[in-house]
Amino acid sequence: MDTAATAESHIPHEIPFYEPVGNECQLFERAYQQRLPLLLKGPTGCGKTRFVSHMAAKLGRPLFTVSCHDDLTAADLTGRYLLQGGETRWVDGPLTQAVREGGICYLDEVVEARKDVTVVLHPLTDDRRLLPLERTGELLEAPDDFMLVVSYNPGYQHILKSLKPSTRQRFVAKSFDFPPPELERNIVASESGLAAQQCAALVNLAARLREMKGQDLEEGVSTRLLIYCATLMADGMPATQAAQATLVEPLSDDADVQEGLMEAIRATFGED
Amino acid sequence: MDTAATAESHIPHEIPFYEPVGNECQLFERAYQQRLPLLLKGPTGCGKTRFVSHMAAKLGRPLFTVSCHDDLTAADLTGRYLLQGGETRWVDGPLTQAVREGGICYLDEVVEARKDVTVVLHPLTDDRRLLPLERTGELLEAPDDFMLVVSYNPGYQHILKSLKPSTRQRFVAKSFDFPPPELERNIVASESGLAAQQCAALVNLAARLREMKGQDLEEGVSTRLLIYCATLMADGMPATQAAQATLVEPLSDDADVQEGLMEAIRATFGED
Amino acid sequence: MDTAATAESHIPHEIPFYEPVGNECQLFERAYQQRLPLLLKGPTGCGKTRFVSHMAAKLGRPLFTVSCHDDLTAADLTGRYLLQGGETRWVDGPLTQAVREGGICYLDEVVEARKDVTVVLHPLTDDRRLLPLERTGELLEAPDDFMLVVSYNPGYQHILKSLKPSTRQRFVAKSFDFPPPELERNIVASESGLAAQQCAALVNLAARLREMKGQDLEEGVSTRLLIYCATLMADGMPATQAAQATLVEPLSDDADVQEGLMEAIRATFGED
Amino acid sequence: MDTAATAESHIPHEIPFYEPVGNECQLFERAYQQRLPLLLKGPTGCGKTRFVSHMAAKLGRPLFTVSCHDDLTAADLTGRYLLQGGETRWVDGPLTQAVREGGICYLDEVVEARKDVTVVLHPLTDDRRLLPLERTGELLEAPDDFMLVVSYNPGYQHILKSLKPSTRQRFVAKSFDFPPPELERNIVASESGLAAQQCAALVNLAARLREMKGQDLEEGVSTRLLIYCATLMADGMPATQAAQATLVEPLSDDADVQEGLMEAIRATFGED
Amino acid sequence: MDTAATAESHIPHEIPFYEPVGNECQLFERAYQQRLPLLLKGPTGCGKTRFVSHMAAKLGRPLFTVSCHDDLTAADLTGRYLLQGGETRWVDGPLTQAVREGGICYLDEVVEARKDVTVVLHPLTDDRRLLPLERTGELLEAPDDFMLVVSYNPGYQHILKSLKPSTRQRFVAKSFDFPPPELERNIVASESGLAAQQCAALVNLAARLREMKGQDLEEGVSTRLLIYCATLMADGMPATQAAQATLVEPLSDDADVQEGLMEAIRATFGED
Amino acid sequence: MDTAATAESHIPHEIPFYEPVGNECQLFERAYQQRLPLLLKGPTGCGKTRFVSHMAAKLGRPLFTVSCHDDLTAADLTGRYLLQGGETRWVDGPLTQAVREGGICYLDEVVEARKDVTVVLHPLTDDRRLLPLERTGELLEAPDDFMLVVSYNPGYQHILKSLKPSTRQRFVAKSFDFPPPELERNIVASESGLAAQQCAALVNLAARLREMKGQDLEEGVSTRLLIYCATLMADGMPATQAAQATLVEPLSDDADVQEGLMEAIRATFGED
Repeated sequence: MDTAATAESHIPHEIPFYEPVGNECQLFERAYQQRLPLLLKGPTGCGKTRFVSHMAAKLGRPLFTVSCHDDLTAADLTGRYLLQGGETRWVDGPLTQAVREGGICYLDEVVEARKDVTVVLHPLTDDRRLLPLERTGELLEAPDDFMLVVSYNPGYQHILKSLKPSTRQRFVAKSFDFPPPELERNIVASESGLAAQQCAALVNLAARLREMKGQDLEEGVSTRLLIYCATLMADGMPATQAAQATLVEPLSDDADVQEGLMEAIRATFGED
Repeated sequence: MDTAATAESHIPHEIPFYEPVGNECQLFERAYQQRLPLLLKGPTGCGKTRFVSHMAAKLGRPLFTVSCHDDLTAADLTGRYLLQGGETRWVDGPLTQAVREGGICYLDEVVEARKDVTVVLHPLTDDRRLLPLERTGELLEAPDDFMLVVSYNPGYQHILKSLKPSTRQRFVAKSFDFPPPELERNIVASESGLAAQQCAALVNLAARLREMKGQDLEEGVSTRLLIYCATLMADGMPATQAAQATLVEPLSDDADVQEGLMEAIRATFGED
Repeated sequence: MDTAATAESHIPHEIPFYEPVGNECQLFERAYQQRLPLLLKGPTGCGKTRFVSHMAAKLGRPLFTVSCHDDLTAADLTGRYLLQGGETRWVDGPLTQAVREGGICYLDEVVEARKDVTVVLHPLTDDRRLLPLERTGELLEAPDDFMLVVSYNPGYQHILKSLKPSTRQRFVAKSFDFPPPELERNIVASESGLAAQQCAALVNLAARLREMKGQDLEEGVSTRLLIYCATLMADGMPATQAAQATLVEPLSDDADVQEGLMEAIRATFGED
Repeated sequence: MDTAATAESHIPHEIPFYEPVGNECQLFERAYQQRLPLLLKGPTGCGKTRFVSHMAAKLGRPLFTVSCHDDLTAADLTGRYLLQGGETRWVDGPLTQAVREGGICYLDEVVEARKDVTVVLHPLTDDRRLLPLERTGELLEAPDDFMLVVSYNPGYQHILKSLKPSTRQRFVAKSFDFPPPELERNIVASESGLAAQQCAALVNLAARLREMKGQDLEEGVSTRLLIYCATLMADGMPATQAAQATLVEPLSDDADVQEGLMEAIRATFGED
Repeated sequence: MDTAATAESHIPHEIPFYEPVGNECQLFERAYQQRLPLLLKGPTGCGKTRFVSHMAAKLGRPLFTVSCHDDLTAADLTGRYLLQGGETRWVDGPLTQAVREGGICYLDEVVEARKDVTVVLHPLTDDRRLLPLERTGELLEAPDDFMLVVSYNPGYQHILKSLKPSTRQRFVAKSFDFPPPELERNIVASESGLAAQQCAALVNLAARLREMKGQDLEEGVSTRLLIYCATLMADGMPATQAAQATLVEPLSDDADVQEGLMEAIRATFGED
Repeated sequence: MDTAATAESHIPHEIPFYEPVGNECQLFERAYQQRLPLLLKGPTGCGKTRFVSHMAAKLGRPLFTVSCHDDLTAADLTGRYLLQGGETRWVDGPLTQAVREGGICYLDEVVEARKDVTVVLHPLTDDRRLLPLERTGELLEAPDDFMLVVSYNPGYQHILKSLKPSTRQRFVAKSFDFPPPELERNIVASESGLAAQQCAALVNLAARLREMKGQDLEEGVSTRLLIYCATLMADGMPATQAAQATLVEPLSDDADVQEGLMEAIRATFGED
C-alpha cells in the first residue's frame, strides 16, 4: 500500500464550494507564494476547514488534514517505523508527506496537540523551512509548494493550553466568524437542497440563537448545524422537530437553556 | 479466527423489543439515510442501548458497541498490529469493522474516552465521512450504510470530561428519559414474566423513588433495575426483599437514604 | 502448563464453613439461577470472601478471585499474549477462564480497579452476557453457569474512586456486616480451636472495640483478627499479649487510640 | 546463573547478633509456626532489619529482603520474563523464590510500594496462602516454612501512602523502638569495638538528642548512626568531629538545629 | 543515509546576515575559544537563533539546532538504537553529532526540556567536557571546536520550569533585546525588499506596539513579524491589511487589545 | 567496546588540585577505610565534585560520576539488557561498574533521582554492602575498595524532593561551603592564569555579591563562575563586561537584582 497514493486522493475532482467573506483568499494565496505559514482563528463550524479545502484545490495541491488532540505527538505528524509483514518499514506521517510531495498540511485545533510538535513546527516556520527526521537521519527542505496551516478556536478558554508566543509569532494570522446572513443562506441552500425561503428563516433564527452565546451557551449555532437542520427539513421532517434535534440538543443539556432555544424556534416555525 | 464473522454475529435473529416514546425511530432512520451521525443523551438504564440494538436490527445492519472508559484510545477503535502465532497481523477495531462492512458503531458514554478519539470522530462526521488508518496507510471512505451513534449521560457533572462544542456540533442529537408509566409496565412485564398488577405496583413505586433523585440520590431507579426486581419476584422472592436487593442497595450506601427508600417500598408491598 | 487446570484447583474438596446471617444464600442462588450479577458491600474481614467461596463450592463451580488495585486493567482480567519459550501464546485472564469454563469470577474491592474494566463488565452484565476479546477476535457468550460477583467497602471514603451509577445499576446488591455475636463465637472457635468461653470473651471484647470505630478508628476489628488472636491464645500466648499483637497494633499507630484499646483488653483479660 | 543459589547465600554462616527487648522473638516464632504474616512498625535504624535477619537465621530459613519504593510493582516481587542470551526465560522475583523454597520474605517500608502489590499480598495472607503467577499460569501454595514479614515507619506522615485497613487487618503486628540504654550500649560496643565507657557516653548523648525529635527533627538518632560514630572514634577520630559527621549532619540541614545538637555533643565530649 | 552528511549541510554557503548590537560577537568568540558554554536570554524573535547561525558560519563550524519542548529527553539529544531494515543501529542525536564532529549545538528554549537533559549538560559544562553515552559504553571527550549554546526567554513566568542554579551557574550568559531602531530598519529592509521609508514607518510602529507589552500583551511584536509584514507589503498587499495579519492577529485574540493595536496601525498607515 | 576500559579512563594521570578547608580529606579517607558511605552537602559550584575527583585520584580508585535528575531510575545505575548488533547484551551501569571493579561511585544531587534508587542504595549502605542485580540473578558483594558518595544542595527547598530519614541515616555526612577568601584566590588564580591582585579583587567582590543571597538571589556566586570571569579577563575582556557575563547574567533575570549586582561590580572595577 502506498501512502503517497492515499495523499493524492485528497485532491478532490472539483473545487469545494467556498464563498469568500473578506480578503481571506488573497491572504492565503500571498502567504502560500511568500512561503509563510498561516494561522486561522475562529469558532466551531464556521467554515475554516472548508476554506482550507477550497484553497488547496484551487492551488492544485494535495491537502493533509490532522485533527489535533491531547495525545497527538510529533511522531504522529512526522512518521514512525512500523512492523508490517514481519519487516520494519518507515511510514511518513501527514506532515512529512506534505513536505515531500509539496502540499498543504492543515493542523486543526493545534493548541490541543502535545508540546513536542513545536519541535517540528519551529524549523518549518523559519526562513530555513526545514523538517528534520531524526529517526531516519533525513533533513528535508520544504519545497516552494509546501504550506503549513494551523487553526484554533480562541473562544475556548484553556489555561493550560495555548500557543506560546514564540510559536504564534511565526505565523501570518486571520480571524474567521460565521458568514454574513446572505452568504450563509446560499451555503445552507446549496448544501441541503432546502427551498430558499426556509433557508432564510433558518439563518434569521440562527442570528437570534447566536445572541444567547456567552450568557447561556458555550458556542453559537454553527453553519454546519444549520445545514443538518435544513437537510432533515428537506427530507420531510417537521421544522420544529428538526430544529430541536440539530439546533437545541447538540448545544446544551440545560433544561432552561433548551427551553429558551425552543421558544425562539417556535416563534419562527410555530408548533409542529 | 475471522473478526468479520464476529461482527456478523451481532445481527440478532429477531429484532429486540423496543416500544417508541416519541419520534426517536424516525429521527434515527432519517439520520441514517442522510448519513448524519447521532448523539443520544439520557440517564443510566433508560433504554438507549436497547434502542440502538432495535434500530440496528430493524435496518439490518451489524452493530458494534463499545463501552467507553478513561483509558479508551483511538487505536482501541481503529485497530492495531498484533503479534499472533509469531506473525504481525493487523486487527481491525470495532469502528473500522463497522466502516469496512457498513454497520452501526455505537460508542456508549463517549465522554469517558480519551481525547485522541476526536481524531477519528471528526473526519468521520464531516461530509467527507473518512476514516484514515495511518498505521496501515489506508484512507477508508464510509459506505452509505455506515452510521456513527454516540451517547452520554448529561446527569453526571464532569468538570474535566465533556464533549467539546467542536465535537458536539457534528451530531444530530436526541434526549432520552425513563419510559412513561404505561410503557414501562409493559417492558417490565415482558422482560420478567411478572404479573401485570405487580408490574404496575413496581412502576408506581419507581416514580416515587425517582422523586428522591438530586436531593439524596445521584441517579433514579433505572428500568433495568425494575426488571431485576420483577425477575426475582417472579422467581418467588418476597417483594420487599427483592426490592431491597435491586432498588435500594444498588442505589445508595447511605443508611438514611436507604431507610427513606425502604419506607416507600414497605408502603407499597408491606413487610415481608 | 495448562491454565484451565489451575482454575480447577479452585474447587475445594469440601465446602468451606459459612454460617448464614440473613437471606444472603438464597439471594446468591437466585441471582445465579437468573444469571444476574451480584454486588456485595461491607467492611474488611467480615466474611465476604468466605461467603463467596462457600457459595461457589455449594454450587460446584470453580471460583476465580481477583484482588483489585489501582493498576488493575481490563487486560489483567481478560488475558494477553505472552512470549513463552520463544512463542507468542494467548493466556486467558481469570475472567475469561470463568466465562469459558462456566465459573464464578469474584472481583474483590472492584472500585480500586482502573476504569477500563467497565468495558468488560458492561456487556457481561447486560442481558446479552457477552465478553468481547478484541485481541483474539473472539466474542464469548457467557454460559448459564457463569456468574460475576463484585465487592467493595462502602466505609472507605473515596472521592476519586467509586462505582459509577451506570455500573452499579447493573447489579443485584447485598450489604454485609460483622456476624451477630453467637455466630461469630462459633466461627472463631471452629477456626482457632480455642475454648468456647474464651471465644465468647473475645467476641464481647470485639463489640466494645468496634464502638470506637469512626471516632478513633478507620475500621472496626475484623472477624479475621479475632481468629488470629484466638489462634495465638490457643497456641499458649498470654491473652493480653495476643490481643495487643492482633487487635491493637494492626488497627492503629496512634498512642492514645492504642491505650484506649488496651484498657478495654485489660478490662477483659487483666494484666498478663 | 541459578537464582536459587543466589537466595541460598542469604543464609548467613552464623546467626546475626540480636538482643531481644520484649516478646518479639516469641511472637515471631509463633506467627511463623501458625503461618500468620507479621507486620513490624518502628523508626528508622532501630533494628527491625537486623531482627528479621536474626530470626531467619535462627529458624534456618533463607531471607529475601526487598526495600520498597514508589515504583515497586507486583512483578518486581513475583518475577518476569526476561530476554537472556536471545532466549526468553522466566526469572522468579524474591517473593516467588521465598514461596518456592520456603523462606522468609521481608518487604521493608511496604507502604512505599505501588498498589498492585496488594494483589499478591492478599491471597498470600489468607488462610489459603496462595501465590498466583498469572504470567506462567502457576498457582503456588506457600509451604509451611514460608513467612511474609512487612514493615513500615509510623512516624512518617504520608497522606497518600498508608496501608489500607483491608491489608493491615491481615497481619499480626509488633511495634519497635530504639533499644533500652543498657542494651544499646552493648550493641554499639560489639559492632564498633569502641571501649565500653565511651559507648555509654554515646548512648546517654543519644537519649538527649532523641528528645529533640518532633520539635526540631523528623527522626531521632538511630542506633546505626551511633555505631557509625563509635566506629570513627575507635578509628582515632576526635569524638566531637565524629559526632558532627554522624549524629548532626545526617539528621538536619538547619543551622539552628545543628547548633542545638552540637551543644549537646560538646557538653558530652568537650571541644576537640 | 549518513547522519554526518546531514549535519554538514547545516554549514550554509554564505554567512547569514547579522548586525551586532553590543559585544555579543566578541563574547561568543571568546567563550568558544575558552571552551566555555554560553547562555542566551531574550524575547521571542529578537534574533537569537539568527545570531547563533551567524556565529557558527563565521567560525566555520556546523550548527545543530534543537527546539526544546516538554517531552524532550536526554536520549533525543544523545541518540538511540533504532531498528532499521531489520538491523539495530545506533543513531547519534544532534548533541552527540556536534561532539563527535566538533560543532555548535544550540538548545533553543532549554527550560522546556525534561530534567534528564541535565545529565548530559553537566559533565559537558565541566572542565572535563565529557559526554558519556551509557548505551554504547562510550565516553566522548568534546574537541576544542565543540561549543554548547542554550537559550531561554526570561519573559515567560514558569513556576515549574526554570533552569536550576546548579545548571545556570555553568554558563557564561548574555541578554538580548529587540535591535535598536536603525538596525532593525536595515534588517527588515534587507530581509523583505521593502523600501527604506516604509521600513522606518514599520519600526516606529513596532516601538509603539511594544509599549503595550505587559499591560495587554504577553510579548511585544518580534522583528520576525515586522519582516512578515514588510514581505506582504512588498508583495502588494495594502499596509493596514498586512499589519492586521502579521502584527495584530498573531499577538492577541482579545477584541479590545486588537482594537488598540489597530488604532496605532491606522494612525501610521491610514485606512486601506 | 569494553565498558570497563571506559571506567578506567576516569583515573586521571595526575591528581586534580584541591586545597582542603577542614577535616574533609581525613573524613573521606576514614569513611573509605571503614567502608562507610558518605554524604556531601553544600551550594552549587563550591567544589564538591572537584573534591571527590581529588580524593578518588589520591586513593587510586576509578571514579564513576552520575548527575541525578527527575527521571533517573535504579536501572540507570545498575544496568540493563541492550540490543547491540542483533544480540541482547547486559551492560553494567556506573554503580555496578564501581562495585565490580572496586571504585568510587558519586551520585551528584541524589535527591533529584527517582525513588527506586533507594532499592539499590539501602542494601549497599548496610553492613552487608550488597548490590542485587535481579535482572541477571547476581548478588554482588561490594569489595573493600568500593565507596558510595552522594551529594545534594540543602539550599534548595524541595517539598516533594528530599532524602528520607531512613536513607539519610545510612551516611556519614559533611557540609561544604565556598572556600575561605585566601584559598579561593589561589584556586581562581591557578585555574584561570589571571594575576593574583585581580583574583583578590574578584574574591572580595564575590563576598559582597554572596551577601545578596536569600533576599534577592536563589544562590550566591559560585567559585566556578569566578573562574569563568577570571578566564575571560585573562583573555583580555574588560573586567566589567566579563563580570556581567559571568557574575550577573547567570544569576538573575530580574532587572533590579541585576542592577544591584552591577553596582557592586562597578564599585570594584569601575566602568569599562
